[in-house]
Amino acid sequence: MFETNVVVVGNVLTAPEWRRPANTNALVANFRVASTVRRLDRETGRWVDGNQFRVRVNCWRRLAEGVASSITVGDPVIVSGRLSTRDWTDAEGNLRTSYEMEAVSVGHDLARGRGRFFRTKAVGA
Amino acid sequence: MFETNVVVVGNVLTAPEWRRPANTNALVANFRVASTVRRLDRETGRWVDGNQFRVRVNCWRRLAEGVASSITVGDPVIVSGRLSTRDWTDAEGNLRTSYEMEAVSVGHDLARGRGRFFRTKAVGA
Amino acid sequence: MFETNVVVVGNVLTAPEWRRPANTNALVANFRVASTVRRLDRETGRWVDGNQFRVRVNCWRRLAEGVASSITVGDPVIVSGRLSTRDWTDAEGNLRTSYEMEAVSVGHDLARGRGRFFRTKAVGA
Amino acid sequence: MFETNVVVVGNVLTAPEWRRPANTNALVANFRVASTVRRLDRETGRWVDGNQFRVRVNCWRRLAEGVASSITVGDPVIVSGRLSTRDWTDAEGNLRTSYEMEAVSVGHDLARGRGRFFRTKAVGA
Repeated sequence: MFETNVVVVGNVLTAPEWRRPANTNALVANFRVASTVRRLDRETGRWVDGNQFRVRVNCWRRLAEGVASSITVGDPVIVSGRLSTRDWTDAEGNLRTSYEMEAVSVGHDLARGRGRFFRTKAVGA
Repeated sequence: MFETNVVVVGNVLTAPEWRRPANTNALVANFRVASTVRRLDRETGRWVDGNQFRVRVNCWRRLAEGVASSITVGDPVIVSGRLSTRDWTDAEGNLRTSYEMEAVSVGHDLARGRGRFFRTKAVGA
Repeated sequence: MFETNVVVVGNVLTAPEWRRPANTNALVANFRVASTVRRLDRETGRWVDGNQFRVRVNCWRRLAEGVASSITVGDPVIVSGRLSTRDWTDAEGNLRTSYEMEAVSVGHDLARGRGRFFRTKAVGA
Repeated sequence: MFETNVVVVGNVLTAPEWRRPANTNALVANFRVASTVRRLDRETGRWVDGNQFRVRVNCWRRLAEGVASSITVGDPVIVSGRLSTRDWTDAEGNLRTSYEMEAVSVGHDLARGRGRFFRTKAVGA
């Protein structure tokens, strides 16, 4: 079967945290993002907040470097990647499920500001 | 901001449950779906199960009718819709978050079988 | 970079054509699909046709078999896959570009009818 | 039916052109983007270029302003939006079809560099 692709256009909820696991030497960064639908309320004729979607976003290697050095809380972003669920047991022994997104691309949303970009010198691919 | 669109290609985990809320008279159906990535294990050269994604799918009106009368446990399906999170408090008073998908289209996956289709007579739109 | 994933919810425009190229022995099927946005006309308060999207869809192997044996002109479908452009030269020597979609999953849209499904017996993966 | 959503991760092919149609006073910008799949060649074990996807991207209002002031040829970008086809007749009277994308969000791809972002002060929504 196939990867579950998703795109989130929203705001960064938490500053990226990053680490460089000793066994891989590859940078890993993660942050949380939220997207809130704006919908037209038919009765009042005004735009109101609709459903929200929040998820933790994991970034690897070059994307982790770009994200860790460029993104901060509140930034409007577009995030494209793959969704998955992760099962775990909490302190009380209850089965729990978390949702996570592995990003393939993250960018500041130019619908909500201007951006300056400093391209990384390509190394190989 | 924008709706968080997603497509899931996977298998039906639970038989659709449906109801017709008295105040709306619109049929509502829901089921759970799981998608498992198949990935090539570089060491063994074999295809193995990778990440899984599971989610509850809500269907409304005509889609609910089609799903309730056509889908059963184990069916391979393709589901397109919008993701959202729903916050709630469990019996112990802990804040919890659920993920749900509101489907706009559901179909049997013709990569995994043959289908016969009986079109609903269009009423209005 | 990454594949350009797309989902089309619409109607089949042309009956699937299929062939089994001698060198591969894998069935290939293709058809055309169209999706038309319905949008609310603010002046009249009525739903009208908006933008249309049409594309040729290519299917391979098991999906080609399911599509060739299940899909016909006018069927409402959901199609998930990858988009690409193909450059060619027409009879007058002009450079032309075609858009094609390689489907990973196709299904009848249960928002618009009921479906019966006959699963293919799994062979290997 | 539904909008045909698509996400493109690729490179800007042409500098954004923009104009402010007299009757709307809303800025419109457009540029072309290309995405090339990198795939593993099983025989050589090397990554090679696979299918390409190119499309014209139209941006409106605030997104047009952000794009026109931030994007230039060669920039790596992520673009999310809706696809449509437009039919026209060329100089020789032949029916032709163009594909266009109406973007809802565009951002520099942080997998390929670092970005600085200057948020527009919110006005109303």
